Amino acid sequence: MDLKKELREIAKNAKTASSFSANLETSEKNRVLEEMAEKLRESKERILKANRKDIALARASRLSAAFIDRLTLNEKRIEEMVNGLLGVARLTDPVGVEIKSWEVPSGLQIHKVRVPLGVIAIIYESRPNVTADCIGLAFKSGNSVILRGGSESLNSNLAIFEALAAVIKKNNLPPGTINIIATKDRQAINILLKLNDYIDLVIPRGGEALIKKVTALSRIPVIKHYKGICHVYVDDYADLNMAEKICFNAKVQRPGVCNAMESMLVHRDVAARFLPGMLKKFKAAGVEIRGCPLTQKIGKEGIKKARDADYRTEYSDLILAVKVVASLDEAIRHINAYGSHHSDSIITDDDNSARDFLKKVDSACVYVNASTRFTDGHQFGLGAEIGISTDKLHARGPMALEELTSYKYAIWGSGQVRE
Amino acid sequence: MDLKKELREIAKNAKTASSFSANLETSEKNRVLEEMAEKLRESKERILKANRKDIALARASRLSAAFIDRLTLNEKRIEEMVNGLLGVARLTDPVGVEIKSWEVPSGLQIHKVRVPLGVIAIIYESRPNVTADCIGLAFKSGNSVILRGGSESLNSNLAIFEALAAVIKKNNLPPGTINIIATKDRQAINILLKLNDYIDLVIPRGGEALIKKVTALSRIPVIKHYKGICHVYVDDYADLNMAEKICFNAKVQRPGVCNAMESMLVHRDVAARFLPGMLKKFKAAGVEIRGCPLTQKIGKEGIKKARDADYRTEYSDLILAVKVVASLDEAIRHINAYGSHHSDSIITDDDNSARDFLKKVDSACVYVNASTRFTDGHQFGLGAEIGISTDKLHARGPMALEELTSYKYAIWGSGQVRE
Repeated sequence: MDLKKELREIAKNAKTASSFSANLETSEKNRVLEEMAEKLRESKERILKANRKDIALARASRLSAAFIDRLTLNEKRIEEMVNGLLGVARLTDPVGVEIKSWEVPSGLQIHKVRVPLGVIAIIYESRPNVTADCIGLAFKSGNSVILRGGSESLNSNLAIFEALAAVIKKNNLPPGTINIIATKDRQAINILLKLNDYIDLVIPRGGEALIKKVTALSRIPVIKHYKGICHVYVDDYADLNMAEKICFNAKVQRPGVCNAMESMLVHRDVAARFLPGMLKKFKAAGVEIRGCPLTQKIGKEGIKKARDADYRTEYSDLILAVKVVASLDEAIRHINAYGSHHSDSIITDDDNSARDFLKKVDSACVYVNASTRFTDGHQFGLGAEIGISTDKLHARGPMALEELTSYKYAIWGSGQVRE
Repeated sequence: MDLKKELREIAKNAKTASSFSANLETSEKNRVLEEMAEKLRESKERILKANRKDIALARASRLSAAFIDRLTLNEKRIEEMVNGLLGVARLTDPVGVEIKSWEVPSGLQIHKVRVPLGVIAIIYESRPNVTADCIGLAFKSGNSVILRGGSESLNSNLAIFEALAAVIKKNNLPPGTINIIATKDRQAINILLKLNDYIDLVIPRGGEALIKKVTALSRIPVIKHYKGICHVYVDDYADLNMAEKICFNAKVQRPGVCNAMESMLVHRDVAARFLPGMLKKFKAAGVEIRGCPLTQKIGKEGIKKARDADYRTEYSDLILAVKVVASLDEAIRHINAYGSHHSDSIITDDDNSARDFLKKVDSACVYVNASTRFTDGHQFGLGAEIGISTDKLHARGPMALEELTSYKYAIWGSGQVRE
C-alpha cells in the first residue's frame, strides 16, 4: 500500500474510533489509563532497549549532546511517564460538562456542553515522553490521536506506543483510538496535513522550521506551540531586590525551556542602581550578556553589543539580551514588537503601571512581580499540559484537557417552530 | 503600488489599529456605533444609487433572479442595517470580562480575561448588508476588520463602507480599524490569506467553492461558515402531529437558508402512518420529494428516486430528500455520515432516544422536538451573529461577540520564583 493510502486509512479509522471514545464513561477511561501506566512500567526493558538503538544512531549521526539528552530515556524518565498517565486518570473529565444553559423566549432550553474535538494529530520532535503524555491527554478528553514524532526517536516512540496500544486492544477499544506514523519518510507530514476530512486539529511542537512548514501546508486547523521570547521588565517603581531574584530565576533556573527569559528590559531611572549587581550575578552564573549601549556602559567590560536580531532570538541557553528603556510605554511596545506573545512580566510596586502592562502586553501570560517560568499547565493547577499555545484562536497559553474539547448545543423543545 | 504591497500595508495598519481598539472604553465604542447608524441612515440615497449600479451590472451579466434579490438594497434593508448597528451598541461588551480566576499553591492569582482576537478578515459573497453587520460586530468586540466582499456588490459595499469610515475618521480613531479591499482582482484573496503575520482569523461566508479555496490556501486560522445539510428524524415514539408541524416548518418556512431541513428521516414503524399526510402537505406547498424505495411506495406517484448524492446536497430550495430508517442508530449514523454537522433534530416522546440523539449526533446544534430553523444568534439570545460555524475549533454554531474574542492570563504575584 502506498503512503498516501496508508495515512488516509489511519486517519479514517481514527475518525471512526473517535465517535466511540467520545461516549466512553469516565470510569472506563480512567481504568484504561491506569492499565496503560502499569503496562508502560512492565515494558521498561523493551523501551530502554529501543531507546539505546535511537541513541546509537544519533551518536553515529553526530547529533548534539543537548539533542541526545532530550532523546535519552532512563528509569526515572519512564517513571515520570507512568506517573503522568496516572495523574491524567485522576483529572476531572471535561467531556459532557455543561458550560452554561439558558432558556430563550421561544421556550427552548439551550445547553452548551463540552464534547471532544474528534481526531488530533500531534507532530513533535525528539522527546519520546511526548508519545505517552499526548496519548494520555487525548484519550482522557475523548479524542483519537495520530502521533508523528521525530525520526530520530522512532524506535523509542514505537516501543512506548506498542505498550499502550496493547492496552487499547485488550480492552476491545477500536484500534484507531491511538495511532502512530511509523515511517521516517518526510512526505508523511505533507500528506497528513491535507487530511482535513478526518483530522480536526494539528498541534506542532518544535522548532521554528517545523512550525512554519506545518502552518504553510496545513488544511487542518493548527494550534502552534511556538518559541518563547519572554521578557522581564524592571519598572522604575520596582522593588530592586525582588527584581534581581525574579530576573535571575527567569533566566538561569532552566534556560532551555520556552518560558525562560530571553530579554530583560530596565527603566532608565533605575538602570544605574539595578544593573551593576544584576549583571555581576548573571556573569557569575555564566550568562553571556548582549546589551544596548547604556547597558554596555554601565556593565563595563565583557558586555557584547546587542544587535536588533538578538532581541528577536530564542537562545534557550545562558545568553541574555538587555535593554534600557525610557518608559513603561517603550517597554510595552518593545515586547509586542519583538516578543513571541508567550509570557512577559513586569516588576513594579506601582499599581497603575502593573495594570497598564497587564492590559497592553499582547501575550498569553502576563505577570506582575513573578517569574515567567510559571507558565505551565501544572503550575497553573491544570494538572497536565499538552503544550503552550502561542496562538489566539481556541486556546492560548497552557493547554490541558479542557482545551482539547469543543462544545455542542443540546436544545430541548416542546414543538417549537419558527414564525 | 502593486496589489501585494497594498494589501500588506492594509493588514499592517489593521494590526497597529487593533492594539488601539482593544483598549477603547465600552461607552466610546457604543457612541461610535450609534454615530455609524446615524451616518448610514443619512447616506441612504448614495448607497441606493451605488446599489442600482451593481444591479444593472448583474442584470447585464445575466445573473439569476435569486442572486439579484440577495444583492438588492432598499429602504427597509438599509433600515435593518441601521438597527443592526444600534442593536450591537446595546450588547454587553465581551472585552475585559473575567472568565474565571483562581489562586495556585505558589500564591499566584491567575485571572483568565477576555481580549479581542486582533485582526479579522471576512470574505463574503453577494449580500451588501454583511458589510455593515461585520463592521459593527468586529468594532464592538475590539477587533480590526478587513472586508472582502463579492465583486458583484463592490459599489454597494464601498458606499456602505465609506459612510462608516467617515465616522471612524471623525472620531480620530486609527483609519486601519475598518478596511475594505476595493478591487475586483481575484488575486486579492490569495495574497490576503498569506498575511498570517498580521491577520488573526479569516471567516469565509459563502458557497462550497469559496470555502474550499480559502481552506486550501490560508495560512491564517479559518472558521468556516459552511453549508447546512440539516435533518429532522421522526422517531417511532414521535408525536406525529408535532412531527408534521416541525418538518413542514423546517423545510418550507424559508428554504433558502442554511438551517432549513434538507433531509427527513422517518422510523419505519411510523412511516405508513406519518408519510402519506406529510408528503401530501409538502406537495401542496410545492416541495419536490426525492425518496428511498419505501418512501416512493408509500407516497405513490410523484416521488422521485433519491440517489446517494441527494442526501449530500444542500438544495436551499423546495426540494427534500426522504429516507425511511430501521432504527434510531441508523438515523444517527446517516446524519453523521451525510450531514454537514450544522443542525439536526429528533422528534420523540422517548427520553432515552432523545438523550442518545443529543449525545451521538456530531453537530453544532442538536434539537429535541423543535425546528432546525432556530439555529441563529438572535434566536439563541446572543443579540447578533457574524455567521454560523460548522467547525469545531474556537467557535461552533452561532458566532456572536464572545466568539470574536480570545483570552489572556493576567497573573498577580508577590515575588514568586520557580524552585
